[in-house]
Amino acid sequence: MSLHLSFSSPMLPATLKLRRQKLADLIEVPVILWSGGSSSRNFPANVFPFRASSHFLYFAGLPLENAAIRLESGKLTLFLDESSQASALWHGASPTRDEIATKIGADAAYPLSALKDQVLDAATVAVQDSQTRLEQTRLLDRPISNYPSDIDLKLANAIVTLRLTHDDAAIAEIRKAIAVTVKAHQAGMSATPNATVEAEVRAAMEGVIMANGMTCAYGSIVTVHGEVLHNDRYHHPLRSTDLLLADVGAETATGWASDVTRTWATSGKFSPTQRDLYNVVLAAHDACIAAIRSGVEYREIHLLAGHTIAAGLVDLGILRGQPADLVERDAHALFFPHGVGHILGLDVHDMEDLGDLAGYAPSRTRSQRFGLGYLRLDRPLQSGMVVTIEPGFYQVPAILQDSERREKYRDVVNWERLADFSDVRGIRIEDDVLVTESGSEVLTAALPTSVDAIEQWVRS
Amino acid sequence: MSLHLSFSSPMLPATLKLRRQKLADLIEVPVILWSGGSSSRNFPANVFPFRASSHFLYFAGLPLENAAIRLESGKLTLFLDESSQASALWHGASPTRDEIATKIGADAAYPLSALKDQVLDAATVAVQDSQTRLEQTRLLDRPISNYPSDIDLKLANAIVTLRLTHDDAAIAEIRKAIAVTVKAHQAGMSATPNATVEAEVRAAMEGVIMANGMTCAYGSIVTVHGEVLHNDRYHHPLRSTDLLLADVGAETATGWASDVTRTWATSGKFSPTQRDLYNVVLAAHDACIAAIRSGVEYREIHLLAGHTIAAGLVDLGILRGQPADLVERDAHALFFPHGVGHILGLDVHDMEDLGDLAGYAPSRTRSQRFGLGYLRLDRPLQSGMVVTIEPGFYQVPAILQDSERREKYRDVVNWERLADFSDVRGIRIEDDVLVTESGSEVLTAALPTSVDAIEQWVRS
Repeated sequence: MSLHLSFSSPMLPATLKLRRQKLADLIEVPVILWSGGSSSRNFPANVFPFRASSHFLYFAGLPLENAAIRLESGKLTLFLDESSQASALWHGASPTRDEIATKIGADAAYPLSALKDQVLDAATVAVQDSQTRLEQTRLLDRPISNYPSDIDLKLANAIVTLRLTHDDAAIAEIRKAIAVTVKAHQAGMSATPNATVEAEVRAAMEGVIMANGMTCAYGSIVTVHGEVLHNDRYHHPLRSTDLLLADVGAETATGWASDVTRTWATSGKFSPTQRDLYNVVLAAHDACIAAIRSGVEYREIHLLAGHTIAAGLVDLGILRGQPADLVERDAHALFFPHGVGHILGLDVHDMEDLGDLAGYAPSRTRSQRFGLGYLRLDRPLQSGMVVTIEPGFYQVPAILQDSERREKYRDVVNWERLADFSDVRGIRIEDDVLVTESGSEVLTAALPTSVDAIEQWVRS
Repeated sequence: MSLHLSFSSPMLPATLKLRRQKLADLIEVPVILWSGGSSSRNFPANVFPFRASSHFLYFAGLPLENAAIRLESGKLTLFLDESSQASALWHGASPTRDEIATKIGADAAYPLSALKDQVLDAATVAVQDSQTRLEQTRLLDRPISNYPSDIDLKLANAIVTLRLTHDDAAIAEIRKAIAVTVKAHQAGMSATPNATVEAEVRAAMEGVIMANGMTCAYGSIVTVHGEVLHNDRYHHPLRSTDLLLADVGAETATGWASDVTRTWATSGKFSPTQRDLYNVVLAAHDACIAAIRSGVEYREIHLLAGHTIAAGLVDLGILRGQPADLVERDAHALFFPHGVGHILGLDVHDMEDLGDLAGYAPSRTRSQRFGLGYLRLDRPLQSGMVVTIEPGFYQVPAILQDSERREKYRDVVNWERLADFSDVRGIRIEDDVLVTESGSEVLTAALPTSVDAIEQWVRS
């Protein structure tokens, strides 16, 4: 473990106390949450950077490795071993258990070995690393998995209720992550004119995140092949006619995420066709954000994106027909085959470790429709939620070359007209939006979205 | 899986064929090696960057995810599933199984499901990710662990024999990693005068590695607290009187590592005391490299480093006595408490997943001596090995404040004189050295080691 406490806030104990009191209102059984351990890369001592479980972070506030907390009736007990002398040689002095307990406002603190006597009837959430998962299974004497049941399911639902909307401390952390992400995108834009390969732009962006003491909340996408939705390759050369899509977000030291995408012309100047399609996506982006407020169904926001994109493509002569009919037939999904966004918090797809428990309201399940199946969020919006809004336009060969789809949509797609837009493979514009009672706040507003402003940033 | 083959060499099939023929000379049973899968970070879809098992990479040449190879009598069979259409949407088109099989010169290629019929009497090596480890255990119907026995131990020994010395293809890859690492260190030095915090220097260094399409072979150490040997924190401010220790190394796309440390003054100018101690470490570094050649015991190289450091500290008035006696008493280890280096290859501590099987010659075990216990390599050097040479000087509070040690060494340490050197907390100089019949080649020679040259690089 290598922990420093310089980033911990004096407000942390009060924040955590409120969170666990709210949890106590929702569940009566004791709760034990493990932080997890590091995962090995190519040999046991060569590990990936440690990431504590998000549920642990929510209630314990600090990324403690190989720790557990017990929550009961609003009380917090910390279980953590102090580091050995050999560890001090290799990893430096660590704060003591009591110092950490004070920082997080724990009511009591013990070595990890004491945990085994306090597990009776306790609920938990599965961590990601399998070593700790085995320990969870052993101590609780039942299989612990990503598909919780019984009291674990009850706990998962209680945590979802809490984590769906954010308190001020959480929003402050998300704002910190976003502030660094904005700088990263700015650096990426500035680095592009002198870069010859995607990897150089990625390095400029992630360098800003690293220099600010943060990590990436997810694997960055920085590519001239934006049509590959989760592209994790960075080897393509940048050609002067390319659009570059960058989906890069910072995560704070205590685990709070941001998630931002911008698309810019590598040359600094969009072609007329690139500008036209970009503005279709931007219209969808703006319409969605304007429609956000507490109580609105997120699914409607998604369909609004589809409608706006369909309407824009009709205007450009790429689609034929009425936008409402086109969306009904999922024709928009030929070019916008993913959901318009998701909830954001301690995870970039918040609480996705619990499957669709957080993303989908009770009794709702994923649609079989081509245009809805990839939607990660299907709930009424609530004040205090942070959601992403990320419409896009892509020319995905696997979709557009598919003979069945070409047949199905042959009357609505003008393939010849589409060919005029061959210099656009992928565009996405993604912001992080805080839902309020009366509307929303775009937390990522410092990063421009208009073609003119982006062109200026690339050339600056 | 997201694989591109742009980095694969036309020589790869010939290289791999030779490796598996050599393996066939050493072991008669069939061998199955799994590549492993990605490890989850905070939720299943948010994974750490995939790293294939090093043993798989050695014989299969490419970082294929969720693949296996079977080696028997010099023949290679590849087991790999082709990616689905949904995967093409999210991750882009992948090369087909047959294209990959051709790239690596496989004799046959099948889907993964065919593997279960070819496992009889096969030996294997445990991978790091637990999901694949379960699969290994299931298919081979016996526990597969980091502590191999029976045919798995026989295989591990055969692989150690092969991987201890490198063929031309391996050395070419290590040279590629080193070339990028040299640039990274250069960038770190140049970035230091304008940096205010360790993280900024780290970002400059890792940015070069990333921009060149490589990854870090291990968690970087970039710190003004070099006395914390495996420091993985980057939050300390840089003060003008600090030395900065940077232990950063690139890894190529096919997994070959480099491992380099330099120490420089944040101001660009070493103080006289910093220069004096740096030159003690440099003398040890140079003496060790001069002593390397095939047949020499690496343990003797380590003791030579201890001797040279002890002699240097006597000259500076920090230690009292004869260097040979001081080393005999492990007094050098008060300031140089780790081994002088290790083997380097596909892992930065090569084959450390097999414990000391590679590092220690048969029948040798770790010493209980304070000055030898951390030595990772105790074998006669062989032509074709690549080893690191990384002596250091540290003032580790956990060692120097230890009352038992202070008592034991009270006659040999001049504590008052030592206090004059309080502006040195940690110095290390680390190069990667290829052992040859008649001597050695310093593969990292492009990066200077002298104080004058380093000062110039920092100020350039």
